[in-house]
Amino acid sequence: MKISKRAIEIQASPIRKLAPYAEAARAKGIRVFHLNIGQPDIETPTEILDVYRHFDKKVLAYGPSQGLHVYRESLVRYYNKHKIPINQDEIIITTAGSEAIIFALLATCNPGDEVIVPEPFYTNYNGFATIAGVTIKPLTTYAEQGFALPSIKEIEELISEKTRAILFSNPGNPTGAVYLKEDLERLAAVAQKYNLYLISDEVYREFVYDGLSHTSILHINGIEDRAILVDSISKRYSACGARVGCFITRNHELYEGVLKFAQARLCPPTIDQLAANAAVSIEDEYFHSVLKEYDKRRNIVYNEVHKIQDVVCVKPQGAFYVIVKLPISDTEDFARWMLEEFSYEQETVMFAPAQGFYATPGMGRDEVRLAYILNEESLKRAMFLFRKGLEEYNYYKKY
Amino acid sequence: MKISKRAIEIQASPIRKLAPYAEAARAKGIRVFHLNIGQPDIETPTEILDVYRHFDKKVLAYGPSQGLHVYRESLVRYYNKHKIPINQDEIIITTAGSEAIIFALLATCNPGDEVIVPEPFYTNYNGFATIAGVTIKPLTTYAEQGFALPSIKEIEELISEKTRAILFSNPGNPTGAVYLKEDLERLAAVAQKYNLYLISDEVYREFVYDGLSHTSILHINGIEDRAILVDSISKRYSACGARVGCFITRNHELYEGVLKFAQARLCPPTIDQLAANAAVSIEDEYFHSVLKEYDKRRNIVYNEVHKIQDVVCVKPQGAFYVIVKLPISDTEDFARWMLEEFSYEQETVMFAPAQGFYATPGMGRDEVRLAYILNEESLKRAMFLFRKGLEEYNYYKKY
Repeated sequence: MKISKRAIEIQASPIRKLAPYAEAARAKGIRVFHLNIGQPDIETPTEILDVYRHFDKKVLAYGPSQGLHVYRESLVRYYNKHKIPINQDEIIITTAGSEAIIFALLATCNPGDEVIVPEPFYTNYNGFATIAGVTIKPLTTYAEQGFALPSIKEIEELISEKTRAILFSNPGNPTGAVYLKEDLERLAAVAQKYNLYLISDEVYREFVYDGLSHTSILHINGIEDRAILVDSISKRYSACGARVGCFITRNHELYEGVLKFAQARLCPPTIDQLAANAAVSIEDEYFHSVLKEYDKRRNIVYNEVHKIQDVVCVKPQGAFYVIVKLPISDTEDFARWMLEEFSYEQETVMFAPAQGFYATPGMGRDEVRLAYILNEESLKRAMFLFRKGLEEYNYYKKY
Repeated sequence: MKISKRAIEIQASPIRKLAPYAEAARAKGIRVFHLNIGQPDIETPTEILDVYRHFDKKVLAYGPSQGLHVYRESLVRYYNKHKIPINQDEIIITTAGSEAIIFALLATCNPGDEVIVPEPFYTNYNGFATIAGVTIKPLTTYAEQGFALPSIKEIEELISEKTRAILFSNPGNPTGAVYLKEDLERLAAVAQKYNLYLISDEVYREFVYDGLSHTSILHINGIEDRAILVDSISKRYSACGARVGCFITRNHELYEGVLKFAQARLCPPTIDQLAANAAVSIEDEYFHSVLKEYDKRRNIVYNEVHKIQDVVCVKPQGAFYVIVKLPISDTEDFARWMLEEFSYEQETVMFAPAQGFYATPGMGRDEVRLAYILNEESLKRAMFLFRKGLEEYNYYKKY
């Protein structure tokens, strides 16, 4: 029996490739520190967990396809607080940010259309593009420039008759780069000139450092009909397992189109939406303390990384990832070696080779992504092992 | 800004069209009995709700893309009990049955391919087909024959070079028809002859009456590589809001393909899976009592419907729906009229015109789908109002 072409071609998780090696290392009694995944160790706020604990309805029923009224109402308050005036008929609650991006691609692009995405990018964008039958045109950004948004000219070079949208995450996964207001205005200018949608994945919106404030795509004037905001509670409240996100647009025709896709799958999970609703009332103090914790970790990783000779790493200002360019030629080999061959005091570290975050062949082969989602002590140890491993690997490769 | 062709063409919920009329009726103080939706009033078992209430983890984390190990293990037990021997590496937990069907279409069909679906069919199959870029070829079944599966010859007439699968629900929504072993063997013979997949939506598997036992597609020998089972806890345990379903296949290449689609969206909701896991241990006594309740309701609807002159309705043997062919020419007009014009003692009833369940233009215009998801007393009253309304409507149309 043949399976479909898209089922063959859809990218397998590039991180999953290493999982069997980590498994084997653990089986040998080696402790593996994980810098490879975006699962935060921060505790989920009790306000969220209490909703599950106090659910008192007798029937766990469907909700509306666009999401629970009460939650959309709360989200209006949340975005208003961030100076994003929207109303609840511009919000569709989705099964996590993933579904919101799939909906955005399905509703803005026909099969065969193209979407420009700054690379390195969140690797699952590849899967969403395959599902929607859309081609990703990568817009390469560089470690040396802190993965800054390229010039208008460089963007324009990628635009064809099939281009329908620019998709990006801000703050960026895997880069940690933060697009400022002038960056978004540059994207808006291109979008207006070439009649494109702007799909802004802002799931890390609360994670910006150095006193910066986050600029949303919905802060930019004059692009009301082409701006799409994708959001999720997964990282914001360390609630990845709830699977609650949202799709926001002020373009009402687009909204109605996406609503029909949403109706087909009936609704997002009900109790999880109620939990997400409770999260909106969590005090700002929560974010301040979480941010402080991540900022501390960011500095640890940044400082540890710069103890390595010939490393390229501009300090990222957002999210909880950093891409590091290393003085080696194949980080996939290095990552595998760290799990298969290396250990120090029965410990090693796992990280993501950056190649999987690029669509341009050959790019990122000397880069890794480190997620700083471990506590201070574990993170310091993991970074020590990372440096130690790199030294040994280079020595081993030389002789 | 243009939206995509598929966002324009995807079917809007045909039931939703009537929602504003129901809203208006309620605003006039009229009580509306709902026979139009598949949201059961049966209480969700406490075994399920208790899982939410007792969740004691500190971090609500991602689970594996194929679903929680513990739940897949339990499902193996569940299916074994139903004489379906599978192992957990043949199961992928999905965000409800909807996602399982989307995955099945994405992985078996390329865009432009065709899937044969007996009509009338669950209307959201249209949306799933649009998302996957697949064309539905309807295989018409008839009220007079209790919506029985047509002959091999009739199925063969629909097969083209683009046909990749036959998709059906068993027991059927909206027909209540149950396919017996010989029906499935007929489908298997066609599938083998023309090299097709069989996608069997068995979300109503526990709801079969008259002492019948349900035959699963996985009970049929010789089609291990082409049989796909889609399932869900929504109806089985009256837990529609949990959004937990599954995709099952013994075809390992297909499994690996679907797993990659599953990896792109990371995972289904975590606590809801734990709740679904607890449901597997619910004693059979639960199903016996639920089934008895639905059977009582089925008899009420059937008997009430047959008080109408010139009605066509063969007693359905499964699910909790019945399609009724009425002596009127436009049930959409009738349904709207019941909400806009009719009321008796300040009450009326809402139901689904059947046209939306057909893909063949013009079919089903004289049929309605009634869902028997109300308690005995409400259901009797609703059916009384239905008959009363029909009488008045016919009188009103005549003069």
